[in-house]
Amino acid sequence: MMMKTVDLVEKLGLIDALWTPKIVAQVNDTQVKLAKVQGTFDWHSHEAEDELFLVLEGRLKLEFRDGEVWLEKGQLCVVPRGIEHRPVAPEEVHLMLVEPAGTRNTGDEETDRTVEAEWL
Amino acid sequence: MMMKTVDLVEKLGLIDALWTPKIVAQVNDTQVKLAKVQGTFDWHSHEAEDELFLVLEGRLKLEFRDGEVWLEKGQLCVVPRGIEHRPVAPEEVHLMLVEPAGTRNTGDEETDRTVEAEWL
Repeated sequence: MMMKTVDLVEKLGLIDALWTPKIVAQVNDTQVKLAKVQGTFDWHSHEAEDELFLVLEGRLKLEFRDGEVWLEKGQLCVVPRGIEHRPVAPEEVHLMLVEPAGTRNTGDEETDRTVEAEWL
Repeated sequence: MMMKTVDLVEKLGLIDALWTPKIVAQVNDTQVKLAKVQGTFDWHSHEAEDELFLVLEGRLKLEFRDGEVWLEKGQLCVVPRGIEHRPVAPEEVHLMLVEPAGTRNTGDEETDRTVEAEWL
């Protein structure tokens, strides 16, 4: 048996496209994804899935219909299922996401940035 | 609504006891925990739970019955359910764990280091 290890910085270096989370690990039914984001994403929510955002590099704003939070490097926020949110990154941000397998980046919305996550 | 944010370094600063994971976030049925570890832990496995180890500070060895891996800062490894493992930290290591809620630190073994994880 050779146990696989994953280097986050190395994996992030393989990502070019913005707003396109890539799967790097699975723990039971939960996946860990990495993404590079910049700009303003689409408003969406996930009916059944909580979604954890952890900032690895940069500074991310999470907008909600009634407020916002800023996440600095090393800070996380869990957006509960059903809560509309919109990530905003004035400059490039490197993110780790923790969410149930099958969670779609645009949630219950279908937009031109909707992608099915693939393994990196 | 006030969305809660969690600063990993700040939370780690609240942890004194070694080998005592504390819960800092929950995503559906999965929890994110932080722990400080140093020394050699107890051999154990988790019958039903995969367990993700991500090193935030330091250098961790994961021993298996037929091999070992070293994790540096920013590297992770998922130990599949049923696989016996033993974390070893020659110097203090700060860890993030991602695992199903209810996962016990010593798995199916009951040792003098068994604890039920509490929220930090």
